[in-house]
Amino acid sequence: MDLTFRPARAEDIPAIVALLADDPLGAQREDPAATGPYLAAFKAIDSDPNHLLLVMTRGDDVLGTLQLSFLPGLSHRGAWRGQVEAVRVARSTRGQGLGELLLNHAINECRARGCTVVQLTTDRSRVDAHRFYERLGFSATHLGYKLKL
Amino acid sequence: MDLTFRPARAEDIPAIVALLADDPLGAQREDPAATGPYLAAFKAIDSDPNHLLLVMTRGDDVLGTLQLSFLPGLSHRGAWRGQVEAVRVARSTRGQGLGELLLNHAINECRARGCTVVQLTTDRSRVDAHRFYERLGFSATHLGYKLKL
Repeated sequence: MDLTFRPARAEDIPAIVALLADDPLGAQREDPAATGPYLAAFKAIDSDPNHLLLVMTRGDDVLGTLQLSFLPGLSHRGAWRGQVEAVRVARSTRGQGLGELLLNHAINECRARGCTVVQLTTDRSRVDAHRFYERLGFSATHLGYKLKL
Repeated sequence: MDLTFRPARAEDIPAIVALLADDPLGAQREDPAATGPYLAAFKAIDSDPNHLLLVMTRGDDVLGTLQLSFLPGLSHRGAWRGQVEAVRVARSTRGQGLGELLLNHAINECRARGCTVVQLTTDRSRVDAHRFYERLGFSATHLGYKLKL
């Protein structure tokens, strides 16, 4: 069956949260039983045309997800940036190249929206992810700083 | 004279672009004479309540700037993130602690907007910036990847 890439719908949220939680880092911080905050976040994303929560599906199964944010900025002569967050591919489908298809779809969305750069950060511990993004042509030119409030 | 922190206005854009360009990396990519793209970017930022282009002024002088973006997301139980981009402090005022005041103002804005994390990336070559952000409590937990389109 063919893969489909489309904006997430409210009914996809449990499957997306399950993907976020099925991960060494996500397992420590997500709570799939807490539906309210996830649905509120979905509404904020879905109501803003500069955010796109994307799912990759096959039939009724959500096999992958990521969030794209299209960000205006003055830097680089007023360039728009495409920012990728919360990338996950279902564990059962790893090694089939689905992550690459998902990212390439996202990169094409950024191109279609006139972005001149795609950016993302990834935890230093995700060594496999580093190799994955480098294979796709990304360069780790920056350090990603976080401050918890 | 006292420092003021406020949203940028269209008439501040030349001063902001001058700050962006007065920098080893910015000098290679900004073109202060090209006003159109910068004003278009300003309009996109200014018309979206989830973006704030901030200036730090003293009298008529723009002494610092940064852009804040408030980003919804499913991760971390639907947490909002505050993202900082394009931080600059006027060269003539360096070493007076103004950068710290500017960032602390931004962090407080993020807190007021209910963000649970503040994030930014900085070029690996900006070693002074790394020390600066670490002093403010940020941790370089991530790698920042870019892909030029």
